[in-house]
Amino acid sequence: MASEQWQSQEIQHSPTRPFLLLHRLPGFNLSFLPLLQTRYTVLDPLADPPEPLFTAHSKSARVMICLGPTPVTSEDLDKYPAVECIVGSSAGVNHFDLAACRRRGIRVTNAGDTFSDDAADYAVGLMIDVLRRFSSADWFIRSGDWPVKKEYPLGCKVSGKRVGILGLGSIGLRVAKRLEAFGCIIAYNSRKMKPNVQYHYHKNVQDLAANSDILILCCALTNETYHVVNKDVMTALGKDGIIVNVGRGALIDEKELVQFLVQGEIGGAGLDVFENEPNVPGELFALDNVVLSPHRAVVTLESFTRLQELLLGNLEAFYSNKPLQAQIKFE
Amino acid sequence: MASEQWQSQEIQHSPTRPFLLLHRLPGFNLSFLPLLQTRYTVLDPLADPPEPLFTAHSKSARVMICLGPTPVTSEDLDKYPAVECIVGSSAGVNHFDLAACRRRGIRVTNAGDTFSDDAADYAVGLMIDVLRRFSSADWFIRSGDWPVKKEYPLGCKVSGKRVGILGLGSIGLRVAKRLEAFGCIIAYNSRKMKPNVQYHYHKNVQDLAANSDILILCCALTNETYHVVNKDVMTALGKDGIIVNVGRGALIDEKELVQFLVQGEIGGAGLDVFENEPNVPGELFALDNVVLSPHRAVVTLESFTRLQELLLGNLEAFYSNKPLQAQIKFE
Repeated sequence: MASEQWQSQEIQHSPTRPFLLLHRLPGFNLSFLPLLQTRYTVLDPLADPPEPLFTAHSKSARVMICLGPTPVTSEDLDKYPAVECIVGSSAGVNHFDLAACRRRGIRVTNAGDTFSDDAADYAVGLMIDVLRRFSSADWFIRSGDWPVKKEYPLGCKVSGKRVGILGLGSIGLRVAKRLEAFGCIIAYNSRKMKPNVQYHYHKNVQDLAANSDILILCCALTNETYHVVNKDVMTALGKDGIIVNVGRGALIDEKELVQFLVQGEIGGAGLDVFENEPNVPGELFALDNVVLSPHRAVVTLESFTRLQELLLGNLEAFYSNKPLQAQIKFE
Repeated sequence: MASEQWQSQEIQHSPTRPFLLLHRLPGFNLSFLPLLQTRYTVLDPLADPPEPLFTAHSKSARVMICLGPTPVTSEDLDKYPAVECIVGSSAGVNHFDLAACRRRGIRVTNAGDTFSDDAADYAVGLMIDVLRRFSSADWFIRSGDWPVKKEYPLGCKVSGKRVGILGLGSIGLRVAKRLEAFGCIIAYNSRKMKPNVQYHYHKNVQDLAANSDILILCCALTNETYHVVNKDVMTALGKDGIIVNVGRGALIDEKELVQFLVQGEIGGAGLDVFENEPNVPGELFALDNVVLSPHRAVVTLESFTRLQELLLGNLEAFYSNKPLQAQIKFE
């Protein structure tokens, strides 16, 4: 997309820059804000100093750009009655009140599969890291222990492991494809059995866990998947079982997970997401069979550039009545 | 292999337990020594207290079991003139004076492909760890930085990267297979172009580096590959390039590597092996684009069991005149 072309198009439709609501949690900043401001009058309720005409202008804004996991509630939509389209930057959709959007006829987009490769790469990396004990090995060397203690404990084999994938969507399928090349045996659980997929389907998460060495969570957080990994699932996974989570923290009952890890009732965990980010349960800091990561599965420098293109493209598409990319289908 | 069966066979051939030389560096211990001692009279020059008849008995030992990277020199072989077979436990062979073995008609075995999957899994894991910054992310959380600093720096994408593999043997081929599933583009260098391999071949290591984002070292250490990754190769790899080494430390000119990393002349490294193990250059401890690992690519709990079977099987094969497994072909 050449920006000159876009600008000339826009000027034909509107002599002034259209309003664009920026919806964000404190601390979430838009790196390409200056570029957006050349095309839109960006309205930011968190602007400091406050924008003088924010309340008046925000009532006529037709598009909202929503950063990361910033919640969009029915009350938010009451405040912005002209919004017809929400352009989201996140892979998840659990922060949107989708029922409210549907009622109001608001179209919603997300990051689509922009981050799917990244998240799948990360899940596989976390699995290898936990099994082969990379993070604690790195610390073993940096703390000067190698010449003193000589032997670092052996890790576990990756190849050939039975991997259960929870959520065989665009991320889960990519995880499966990668791990097949390691000779892993793939099974999965999702709401429905997928057509044209040869992996073994378990209707029940507990059955999947009982038949897996590693459980990888790649599903969306919804009312149905909240705490889907509970005490029973962890018991089924067993003492040598490992959990990798690149979905959302609340897919796991985190208090139970901490207990299972501390008491050695599961074998380890690779966690990119937590229930109360950025707070991570302190009990985990002492464990060397746990790899902790600050919610970074779904972003790389490269995919961030792709996301920017997607967001700008959807704003352009909205104003030129073209189809939106990565539009959420309401159920 | 049922041990009862083996013992009854052995007893038919020899009324006493045959001598078995244990050749090892201090600190290298054989976990299944008690099992070996039920079948052999194990002669250990490092035994404490020393074995009274070691010198006399060792002159008639026909088999040597060599642990890990313990060097076997021509002088060692002078001391043990009856040795006909060396059963090695390592994947590498650079610690054997193979020319001396050939002259004396000594057959040599190694670990074969016992560890190939493990090493390939590890190489891929190290690559993801460096690109996506796992080890330093784990430390970011454990040190309590997440709630304070909020944002952890973005990593680089794994999928689609150009990966140059140095040594397309049993490990290198497995690395290639795994990374193809990540959508990486594979090229390689080895002594000769491999038949039936579709990856692009570079006759020259510097050319391979110039055309790769990541260079993965999986080759054996020989006179030809000593310091094969030198200043010119690292310059060709460039500022964003990453080196992963699961081969041997001396494949890289380590002093140069440290300089390139410290000065930001290459992008990062994942290192399982070093020139002077267990000593790791202290300059690397301060770098967060480096992942350090204590020579653990080629062993897991599972492969250790497989290795034990291979070693016992080769000892049995030698004494029953059956073919050896994983026998080294002299060139």
